[in-house]
Amino acid sequence: MPGTAPPPAPAGSALRAGELFQVLRDGRARTRAELAEITGLARSTIATRIDALMSCGLIGPAGEALSSGGRPPSRFAFSASSRVVVAVDVGATHVLIALTDLGGRVLDESRAAIEVSVGPVAVLDLVVEQARNLLTRAGRDPRELAGIGIGLPGPVEHSTGRPANPPIMPGWDGFDVPAYVQRAFGRGKELDVLVDNDVNIMALGERAGFWPVEENLLFIKVATGIGAGIVGRGLLQRGADGTAGDIGHVRLARGEGVLCRCGNVGCLEALASGPAVAAALAAAGVPAETGDDVLELVRRGSLEAVQAVRQAGRDIGEVLATCVNLLNPSVIVIGGGLSAAGEYLLAGVREMVYQRSLPLATARLRIVQSMAGDRAGVLGASRMIIDHVLSPDRIGALLADVA
Amino acid sequence: MPGTAPPPAPAGSALRAGELFQVLRDGRARTRAELAEITGLARSTIATRIDALMSCGLIGPAGEALSSGGRPPSRFAFSASSRVVVAVDVGATHVLIALTDLGGRVLDESRAAIEVSVGPVAVLDLVVEQARNLLTRAGRDPRELAGIGIGLPGPVEHSTGRPANPPIMPGWDGFDVPAYVQRAFGRGKELDVLVDNDVNIMALGERAGFWPVEENLLFIKVATGIGAGIVGRGLLQRGADGTAGDIGHVRLARGEGVLCRCGNVGCLEALASGPAVAAALAAAGVPAETGDDVLELVRRGSLEAVQAVRQAGRDIGEVLATCVNLLNPSVIVIGGGLSAAGEYLLAGVREMVYQRSLPLATARLRIVQSMAGDRAGVLGASRMIIDHVLSPDRIGALLADVA
Repeated sequence: MPGTAPPPAPAGSALRAGELFQVLRDGRARTRAELAEITGLARSTIATRIDALMSCGLIGPAGEALSSGGRPPSRFAFSASSRVVVAVDVGATHVLIALTDLGGRVLDESRAAIEVSVGPVAVLDLVVEQARNLLTRAGRDPRELAGIGIGLPGPVEHSTGRPANPPIMPGWDGFDVPAYVQRAFGRGKELDVLVDNDVNIMALGERAGFWPVEENLLFIKVATGIGAGIVGRGLLQRGADGTAGDIGHVRLARGEGVLCRCGNVGCLEALASGPAVAAALAAAGVPAETGDDVLELVRRGSLEAVQAVRQAGRDIGEVLATCVNLLNPSVIVIGGGLSAAGEYLLAGVREMVYQRSLPLATARLRIVQSMAGDRAGVLGASRMIIDHVLSPDRIGALLADVA
Repeated sequence: MPGTAPPPAPAGSALRAGELFQVLRDGRARTRAELAEITGLARSTIATRIDALMSCGLIGPAGEALSSGGRPPSRFAFSASSRVVVAVDVGATHVLIALTDLGGRVLDESRAAIEVSVGPVAVLDLVVEQARNLLTRAGRDPRELAGIGIGLPGPVEHSTGRPANPPIMPGWDGFDVPAYVQRAFGRGKELDVLVDNDVNIMALGERAGFWPVEENLLFIKVATGIGAGIVGRGLLQRGADGTAGDIGHVRLARGEGVLCRCGNVGCLEALASGPAVAAALAAAGVPAETGDDVLELVRRGSLEAVQAVRQAGRDIGEVLATCVNLLNPSVIVIGGGLSAAGEYLLAGVREMVYQRSLPLATARLRIVQSMAGDRAGVLGASRMIIDHVLSPDRIGALLADVA
């Protein structure tokens, strides 16, 4: 049964080629003898699989180990630079596109202003154009492209890559994003294009970049909306219909009489999102319209703004206290635009979570600000593709075709 | 990436012996040719692996298929009766022990009254004695035992099988349950003994028995305490410290001034558990002390009791509304003692969940009463062992040793 760390390979287990490769994914160079020891596989099996992985370019020679006499044994390591990934974060008013290697390292990136509301064709044409430019600039052949990961600012049916009733994305509902992108690249289904909503992607990116060993992580985006991305047992938890993490419309007692854009009353989002905090300030006579206005006021030292942000943190913390009791994460990462208010927001969150959650569930809990910042989305989109194309099943299938 | 159903095996994939066996776990008899078609494996590979699985006794011949001329081809099927599992549900005042086959079918069971507070040695000695009796009565050799699954009424560190600060189990804290049971059976670590808390076990049992294709399920136990067992992407979600599902101490606005046994105020458990409902009735002049008293009053048609149970349902539903937004399960199963109040409790739960949760998250959500009833625990304890010993990795390792 899985614990927090991957279990050691049982002696004598039938470890597949795909799993041998997983051992090497950490980037360390190893000899055939070391790999035999780690995996319990026969030396002859290791040799065959090393050859197959070399012929795919997924691993390469990495110098020689010290010899105890005779010819020094060769070392092998994962060739993260052998393929590239296009990672796309589509926001409400911009797109960020990154080219990464198979280790998730960003090689280059480009940013463009475009309204998501202009529709999928214009947005995706721009994405594909920019992606081609990035490939050219990096001197990489499109055939070296391992896949394209895309985050969208609305609900997505992940299994098909189609947006599902996205509120701020007219024209996108049900649009076949993968098929369109594959065609625009002159490719078919063999080019992996995976799509998910932005909060899920950010959770993946934050975890991949900064919390790789945490199996239970909660990412909270606080911006125009409020949403959560859930990692449980190391996997993104999307729920039965892909709506998991939708905490913005949990009702709070403090919200009585406050109307939400969803039509209900007292939703978290109506109290603690960027525009909601701005509206509360404006009602108290402090001019503010957007989350950015709030951040600017905080930067200028406005006491009212600092207090309003802390209260937003408390409101979010009240909902997160229930999430902590329910999910027992080891890390909660607070991201999204309003998280730039830093400790003022975090202090409010921590206040309520540590007050309201069970001691056992908070003993080792860390509540931190996003470290990936506005790159969380592209890091996660890249990770989504990497985890897919380098999974044991996929590598196993690839090697079976080579053999 | 996994959707709600297992993906079909890709053509040409390197499917292991362990995975070939997973195909057969549904119990259907298949010919070598059918297995080759399903798995994409070569006929020669199929033949070798069938032989190995037969020699372990995990599959057996299952008659002959219709022939298109020549000798009719043999069929093979999973031999669920080849090994047995001891499944144990330890409650506060009783133990239920079942003997099941590898399909989770209950072959025999026994029940005994014992207080969990007498400590681990007395309880586990009784469990082992009853388990031996069940094996003898079924004419099964102890060597046919595939493993022992145990549910305990308190927090358990699942990776070690040790209870962790269990409130109602004096003497159990940190006790090495697996080692004790292995010794009592005259065995060592090769006998699989897995332990988890009762709510997790019940969630597994309910899913295995009645919702096997649902990947996202929430089981709620409403009894002396209130807790949840979470299945996400088909796996039990235990959280970072094993405390996931602890929803009994979420604070409700209605609970102001109501002291909980945890020391906090307004907890769900202090409002909606069996004893809490009884206390509310007693305070209103209707004599009741326990959850069972409440059930008896409901059965006798007490309007006050019916109303109190429905209000408990609303309180539980208020917390579950947040859980639904967060996790987007397709099924919520309400179990535990107070769930015997049936539709009265469910109506309150549904009222709040459908009012407070997002339409997208509740469109296909079912909220149902436990069907496994007081067998949910043993069914889940059995399933925990079966999923462990029949996992692709374990079968793969087993067959590597045979080969």
